[in-house]
Amino acid sequence: MIKASIIGATGYVGIELIRILAGHPAVTLVHLVSQSFEGQKIGEAYPHLAARCETLEGMNFEKIGGDSDVIFTALPHGASAETIQKLAPYGKKIIDLSADFRYDDVATYEAWYKVKHPAPELMRQAVYGLPELHRAEIQKCQIVGNPGCYTTCSILGLAPAVQKGFIDPDSIIIDAKSGVTGAGRKPSTDLHFSEVNESFKAYGVGTHRHTSEIEQEISKLAGKPVVLSFSPHLIPIQRGILATIYAKLTGEIAHGDFVRLYQEFYKDEPFVQIEEKGLPQIKYVRGTNLCRIGFVVDPRTNRVVIVSVIDNLVKGAAGQAVENMNLLFGLPETAGLDNSPWYL
Amino acid sequence: MIKASIIGATGYVGIELIRILAGHPAVTLVHLVSQSFEGQKIGEAYPHLAARCETLEGMNFEKIGGDSDVIFTALPHGASAETIQKLAPYGKKIIDLSADFRYDDVATYEAWYKVKHPAPELMRQAVYGLPELHRAEIQKCQIVGNPGCYTTCSILGLAPAVQKGFIDPDSIIIDAKSGVTGAGRKPSTDLHFSEVNESFKAYGVGTHRHTSEIEQEISKLAGKPVVLSFSPHLIPIQRGILATIYAKLTGEIAHGDFVRLYQEFYKDEPFVQIEEKGLPQIKYVRGTNLCRIGFVVDPRTNRVVIVSVIDNLVKGAAGQAVENMNLLFGLPETAGLDNSPWYL
Amino acid sequence: MIKASIIGATGYVGIELIRILAGHPAVTLVHLVSQSFEGQKIGEAYPHLAARCETLEGMNFEKIGGDSDVIFTALPHGASAETIQKLAPYGKKIIDLSADFRYDDVATYEAWYKVKHPAPELMRQAVYGLPELHRAEIQKCQIVGNPGCYTTCSILGLAPAVQKGFIDPDSIIIDAKSGVTGAGRKPSTDLHFSEVNESFKAYGVGTHRHTSEIEQEISKLAGKPVVLSFSPHLIPIQRGILATIYAKLTGEIAHGDFVRLYQEFYKDEPFVQIEEKGLPQIKYVRGTNLCRIGFVVDPRTNRVVIVSVIDNLVKGAAGQAVENMNLLFGLPETAGLDNSPWYL
Amino acid sequence: MIKASIIGATGYVGIELIRILAGHPAVTLVHLVSQSFEGQKIGEAYPHLAARCETLEGMNFEKIGGDSDVIFTALPHGASAETIQKLAPYGKKIIDLSADFRYDDVATYEAWYKVKHPAPELMRQAVYGLPELHRAEIQKCQIVGNPGCYTTCSILGLAPAVQKGFIDPDSIIIDAKSGVTGAGRKPSTDLHFSEVNESFKAYGVGTHRHTSEIEQEISKLAGKPVVLSFSPHLIPIQRGILATIYAKLTGEIAHGDFVRLYQEFYKDEPFVQIEEKGLPQIKYVRGTNLCRIGFVVDPRTNRVVIVSVIDNLVKGAAGQAVENMNLLFGLPETAGLDNSPWYL
Repeated sequence: MIKASIIGATGYVGIELIRILAGHPAVTLVHLVSQSFEGQKIGEAYPHLAARCETLEGMNFEKIGGDSDVIFTALPHGASAETIQKLAPYGKKIIDLSADFRYDDVATYEAWYKVKHPAPELMRQAVYGLPELHRAEIQKCQIVGNPGCYTTCSILGLAPAVQKGFIDPDSIIIDAKSGVTGAGRKPSTDLHFSEVNESFKAYGVGTHRHTSEIEQEISKLAGKPVVLSFSPHLIPIQRGILATIYAKLTGEIAHGDFVRLYQEFYKDEPFVQIEEKGLPQIKYVRGTNLCRIGFVVDPRTNRVVIVSVIDNLVKGAAGQAVENMNLLFGLPETAGLDNSPWYL
Repeated sequence: MIKASIIGATGYVGIELIRILAGHPAVTLVHLVSQSFEGQKIGEAYPHLAARCETLEGMNFEKIGGDSDVIFTALPHGASAETIQKLAPYGKKIIDLSADFRYDDVATYEAWYKVKHPAPELMRQAVYGLPELHRAEIQKCQIVGNPGCYTTCSILGLAPAVQKGFIDPDSIIIDAKSGVTGAGRKPSTDLHFSEVNESFKAYGVGTHRHTSEIEQEISKLAGKPVVLSFSPHLIPIQRGILATIYAKLTGEIAHGDFVRLYQEFYKDEPFVQIEEKGLPQIKYVRGTNLCRIGFVVDPRTNRVVIVSVIDNLVKGAAGQAVENMNLLFGLPETAGLDNSPWYL
Repeated sequence: MIKASIIGATGYVGIELIRILAGHPAVTLVHLVSQSFEGQKIGEAYPHLAARCETLEGMNFEKIGGDSDVIFTALPHGASAETIQKLAPYGKKIIDLSADFRYDDVATYEAWYKVKHPAPELMRQAVYGLPELHRAEIQKCQIVGNPGCYTTCSILGLAPAVQKGFIDPDSIIIDAKSGVTGAGRKPSTDLHFSEVNESFKAYGVGTHRHTSEIEQEISKLAGKPVVLSFSPHLIPIQRGILATIYAKLTGEIAHGDFVRLYQEFYKDEPFVQIEEKGLPQIKYVRGTNLCRIGFVVDPRTNRVVIVSVIDNLVKGAAGQAVENMNLLFGLPETAGLDNSPWYL
Repeated sequence: MIKASIIGATGYVGIELIRILAGHPAVTLVHLVSQSFEGQKIGEAYPHLAARCETLEGMNFEKIGGDSDVIFTALPHGASAETIQKLAPYGKKIIDLSADFRYDDVATYEAWYKVKHPAPELMRQAVYGLPELHRAEIQKCQIVGNPGCYTTCSILGLAPAVQKGFIDPDSIIIDAKSGVTGAGRKPSTDLHFSEVNESFKAYGVGTHRHTSEIEQEISKLAGKPVVLSFSPHLIPIQRGILATIYAKLTGEIAHGDFVRLYQEFYKDEPFVQIEEKGLPQIKYVRGTNLCRIGFVVDPRTNRVVIVSVIDNLVKGAAGQAVENMNLLFGLPETAGLDNSPWYL
């Protein structure tokens, strides 16, 4: 059994990791670290986990670095890199769910996150953990920078079309909508039930940090720097992201061309499903590590509309982290992640 | 008191008209027509209206044409024009909430609705009931074609920028999201609580009929034919539309330029509010006839993102119909429509 | 015009008062006091009120006591009585929405709220503001103790049956369910969207303070001390309370007997509606000052089940406060409160 | 591998069975029968299952009876017994999710369901599939009558207290609340999103058929006929039932006595968890086969309030059916049912 520890176990990403790993056939949890609930049983922080016996621990680098085969870090950016700097020397695999190890270029990170990166040398060794694009490098690395939720949904929706030149990269507009769990558990007026329920809003339009992460990967696929529009919105639901992506076609490209291109591009991918007709809904992927992608080609405007959906807590966070762990340890990529969608 | 009748009184638009008119200082309801509930008390169809004494009637052109000063028709397209054809000779004011009288051009209507228009000559006399653009003509007409919900939200969000040439009309993309009441009351699997709740989807992408209505008005403002992308989505909430509108800037235009342009354009409008900073949410307008509009100018992409919100049942349907009635009868435009937003 | 001030204007009860009073034909708002937002425009605290021009003020007893005809206090218990102690000498009408002036007996208040009452002498002069039971005293008093939300719903559902002896008061069980706005706006993990949504829970079972308020009024109606079971629950919706009330019948009493008794008891009440058949839903009263009550008589168990619904923010708080204001100033009791239910 | 077939595969219970069995280590699905979607791929009826290859079949008794080791019937009552009458001769295990095989006494069934039972002799052989009370008989039977959702939640919450005599069975009142999936997928105005959302209602008060099923089991535990009050309510959420159960204490019984009694009674039960303090919420069990039970002893009223929660689609239907299958085939009772709660 692979011994896994979670640092930041009581945030929403942390408990989603616990949920998924509890059902993983090859993993055992050894340390759950939580600053906020140190010394308490996990069931005191989250009563739905009352049947579990773990005590939440404070940070002890030696113990965690020594006892674990893999360490998941689910901390705020900055804090994550500082922690990993101290953990890395123990030589264990690390999967980081913050933004700290997602960038090829320290300057981009520092410009968008407005902090100095505490461990730029480690960042350079880390691999961007989107298996559909970087599987081979992930398998060989020590530190995985697990992608953002909006990012995963957007990149998977765009990658084949950008790489193949079906769309003009300068015309890309991503209108993304997310459930509320993406904002974490910390209470605030903005996330109060009575403020969020029965409303809908845009936020971080043009400035959301995931923009830079999407641009990094899309630029590589396009073979040139791409600047795009990204607008996130908040849906009053628990889980799920739907990205509606607009782009100009570069030629006479039909719906069937998109379907075939994407089916081919993702043909060996266990977690990407292409709609032959129709568009995917968030419901189709709730509780799973799946990404589903559909298309509308609009000859009136010469644009394609690509709709991509994921579960933000699974493929957008904890599930993809487990997928990366599976890759790091040579397990079947779907281990612990092969459940049916919840739908209801 | 103005004597008003409603044909199609038991659809969602119908009961919203009843709700608003019940609080209108200058209107009395004389006939409520409902095919589905003919002969029943309104409280049998909608128990929340149990305190009202009206009996729902079958259609009687003579009685309704004779007794009413104004007739609201809230029927499916096609059926509406047929009904109005028989009512128009009575010479009373008619406000139609279907699509049948919204078009300048019969061919456009017939192409998008895929039916033959039953009364093209009446269509030509009718006026498109968006007071912010057509107030003067509305005041003098007999038949008002009350705009669609997505349409109202999108056109108000775009009009000043298109007219002034701040944006390139060929670059317009409207990503719109609506609450479920916009789909009416008729049961279907698609609108079943357990199917809609905790999900989110796009529908009618590139083909939704409101596209043609938006293009008609935007083309007039642009002074040339405009073709645009319009993608509606379903939010699991009751009321409200938020349209996120993308367009290329035609020059170096700053956020403040948009604010000033829109404040000037809408300066005498009782129902349009411009955000000096920030973006509006659906919550801000729930239960009101307001449209609120905000902007993000993104110098990175040289695009503006315009966010426009309305309550789909009020400014997007029944409220705007009452506003049009106020104009037709020389009442203050805000009569019956000056309530504070519900927010909670 | 009656000059009204609100102390605690930026809580949910405060903004609901603003919403209702903004539509009241005989009231003008003079001072809005908010500790949290002192010096800001109301639109900065609540952007949906951006069109209003009021500045939120700090507390100034002389100014408020001098300028106002009526003062609404929407403060936490304890703080409310302290504030009113300083305001009362100005001789203006005061309607308090906390618990501080709802009790006949200081000891009961102090036992359930576990604080010393700061102004017991004022408490004794105050009148419990449930117009259906205490209209005459309300009209003559200076200070109204506006009832709690659960309380209003429960007492109105029980009063006729208890007074008439249709049910055994010792058998009363109230299973009440409320929307989330009842808990106020202060952020907490418990009220975080992702924690409340798609769940349902009981809280304060057997210990909720409204129990004592209900018992006080039911005891007077029963003519003897009544102890009852009261269990509140949280529904993931914005507004509304539904109380399901169980009691043993004292004899052979049929459904029609309940309907007739309640219709007679409430025959002059503008805000109470009795269901002749069926049971009311929360939807029926959303946005209104109404209470609707229905019955199931179950001969198998010899029990009656009474279902009573209100909007917690209107009849359960701000609306009833305005109703009390109307009584204090000799206005029609429904002034500003006669809108149709929102339903959708 | 156990070969399982589902009759009624495209109702909500049917697809929940598919979801759970898809993750079961010892089961393979052989026939999925659906009258409504015969001949279509399962992914056409439910796009979230697009990755599955099964074709939905019409009813073929010989094929299904021949090929299957176990048959799940998820049909309306009446239709279910008729189907099972024809399937039973093939000698395979049958787990019926309708009400047709839940009763000891045909007369009770016929009185509450107002139909003649088509197969009373089979009913007598069938076993009531609540493992916590009837495990031994289930293991030996051919036909299991899988309990109702409200029923499971209510009986598990009451059983120890009734059997031990802690409470007076004549005083039992069950106030139950369910998510909307319990009402199935068939469209109707009552289940339309816009009608259910932001409301709450009671229904079937005193007449809901699950009353008789609860009374049957509670009477056996009490050793005498018990008549009780049962009131179901509809919560605007997907999944989950919370039952608030009231009863008079028979003596001086403390909270700790309830905890100990229930812990002892359920000590070998894998799916029942007792709260040592506090009350369970629906969130705690979403997606699981768990039942969690908590208590408030109220010395003021000499009543206990028991709160019991389950997921209506899992422990209340498909999960318990799989649990029964595990028992029938000597598998570990938790096989396929040991996932962590979803919580978010």
